[in-house]
Amino acid sequence: MSLPSAFDPGVTAVLSALDLKAVKHVFFVACGGSLSIMHPAKFLFDQHASLPSDVYNAAEFVARAPRSLDRNSLVVLCSMTGTTRETTAAAEFSRSKGAMTIGLTMEPASPLARAVDHVVGFEAPYTTGVAIDARNSNYSRIYQIVMGLVSLTGGEDLTESLIESLFALQPAIDGAQAAFAPMFEDYAPRLAKKDVIYTVASGANYGAAYSFAICVLMEMQWINSQAIHANEFFHGPFEVVDKDRAFILMKGLDSTRPLEERADEFLHRFGSAENILVLDAEKLDLSGIDPRFRGNVVPLIFFDTLWRFAYKIADLRQHEMLEARRYMKKIAY
Amino acid sequence: MSLPSAFDPGVTAVLSALDLKAVKHVFFVACGGSLSIMHPAKFLFDQHASLPSDVYNAAEFVARAPRSLDRNSLVVLCSMTGTTRETTAAAEFSRSKGAMTIGLTMEPASPLARAVDHVVGFEAPYTTGVAIDARNSNYSRIYQIVMGLVSLTGGEDLTESLIESLFALQPAIDGAQAAFAPMFEDYAPRLAKKDVIYTVASGANYGAAYSFAICVLMEMQWINSQAIHANEFFHGPFEVVDKDRAFILMKGLDSTRPLEERADEFLHRFGSAENILVLDAEKLDLSGIDPRFRGNVVPLIFFDTLWRFAYKIADLRQHEMLEARRYMKKIAY
Repeated sequence: MSLPSAFDPGVTAVLSALDLKAVKHVFFVACGGSLSIMHPAKFLFDQHASLPSDVYNAAEFVARAPRSLDRNSLVVLCSMTGTTRETTAAAEFSRSKGAMTIGLTMEPASPLARAVDHVVGFEAPYTTGVAIDARNSNYSRIYQIVMGLVSLTGGEDLTESLIESLFALQPAIDGAQAAFAPMFEDYAPRLAKKDVIYTVASGANYGAAYSFAICVLMEMQWINSQAIHANEFFHGPFEVVDKDRAFILMKGLDSTRPLEERADEFLHRFGSAENILVLDAEKLDLSGIDPRFRGNVVPLIFFDTLWRFAYKIADLRQHEMLEARRYMKKIAY
Repeated sequence: MSLPSAFDPGVTAVLSALDLKAVKHVFFVACGGSLSIMHPAKFLFDQHASLPSDVYNAAEFVARAPRSLDRNSLVVLCSMTGTTRETTAAAEFSRSKGAMTIGLTMEPASPLARAVDHVVGFEAPYTTGVAIDARNSNYSRIYQIVMGLVSLTGGEDLTESLIESLFALQPAIDGAQAAFAPMFEDYAPRLAKKDVIYTVASGANYGAAYSFAICVLMEMQWINSQAIHANEFFHGPFEVVDKDRAFILMKGLDSTRPLEERADEFLHRFGSAENILVLDAEKLDLSGIDPRFRGNVVPLIFFDTLWRFAYKIADLRQHEMLEARRYMKKIAY
């Protein structure tokens, strides 16, 4: 069993070097925006692998110190710059327990890269809004790691189909931006005035909703938010719905879509359509993407295109997207 | 190996009936407030057991259909009334996969009770504010299940110590209510005027912060909220901090306390002390509670006493706590 030649050489090298037969548990560990890609990674892993896995914030992971973390564990970490201290500490902690470690980072000379056994590079995270070939993003690389692991540990080999789907991603993203542009133009002036904007999603999309809530709305725009799970919505959060309340709802194509559809129906019944921005993946042209992976790549498309919406809101609020931090990397904390 | 005679007879009966040697994976599954107790259950399990576990919203669990769910899985579900449809469906789905199922509910004749292999009753959830003996709550019962499982599957036997600690819980709760009362009196008039109140916690406390955010603030008071993980706070959410922003921070006694302390320090540096309500477990009298379980029972104490604060806020806002729902159980959805 070998990986497709089109796979990222870094991913192939790492998976070839590891003693995969020894892996009994996978931990996906990071912080903030990098943590957000671990949720869809686990979703993909849960549906294709029999191995158990966990997703943890890096500081929580070290302090919690799961008893099952040992030399039969594979810990996959991610930090864009490789300088996130908690994530580097988590890599060191994992190695001290004998675990195998993979670090995803853009900086091969960074502290995270030095702290792990194996480095997988990527060109840019989907979280900067920087236009890159989507198959070189952190999302793309971690999906290759996940499906490579599945294939090389005796699961179904869908690696050829995955890599073909990732190659078809950039046109799908470009198409989505064209398809959603008029809606963004329409909604931006209203949502730019809101003090609270919730995001709602489930399944493969939850990480993108989380990242948009905490890294874009809260961090870059100082807008109050929460990423509400589409079914948890009905067990408390939905009581804040009224005609003025703003929501961004993701309707994806994975097996949890009915949860998002139910939230959509409720929101349009008791909220106001003009304050509910719905990204519906059924409206996208996903040519070349295997139906088995459409649900998994949709959040990447959603998040990429949502950057356009975020910049529109920032312009209207006269609140610079990437410069306007009060605290992050501006002070010591 | 047997369980202490002081253990809940229902828990003992269930754990004796199960083929525990067959259990390879534990799934903790519920919705909303009942889901919130699954997070501390997994925290306890992670620190004491080598077996893997997952926490899922019930609808997510069924739609996701983890590949590892099979006859070697134990699925622990909870619904106060036993009528939560998604949770009952999750029990039926689990049994269709051959998994072993335990249902925690107050209603032995409920749909959930009928759908599971084994029922564990409890007197009242900690989520109603109803005064009961704390050792008969859902929290207490699930902790007995977790540490019973650990003991009976070859882990350290801490069951005697756990049950003694649970017996000492009610006086600790009563003491906490007295200790926090002046602070609640002081903070309620200010926080009652806020449109957004965030909760912040980590480790064993995260579930209580989640439940207070979605079931109390959002559901019962229509106040905007999010339960922010104390370290994720530094990776985005902290940019919303200013002198007016309201937070409820839990400082517990588990191994993640330093994460909560760091958030506390930041909040007091850039926010305003008068808008930051800090529940610090170091101020509590926890006599009779084993230091090894203090971190685990603290969220139960916090949540119980926070009900007093919630009722104060409700009075000031003239917004009835338990009656003022717009949607929940009032309409079909």
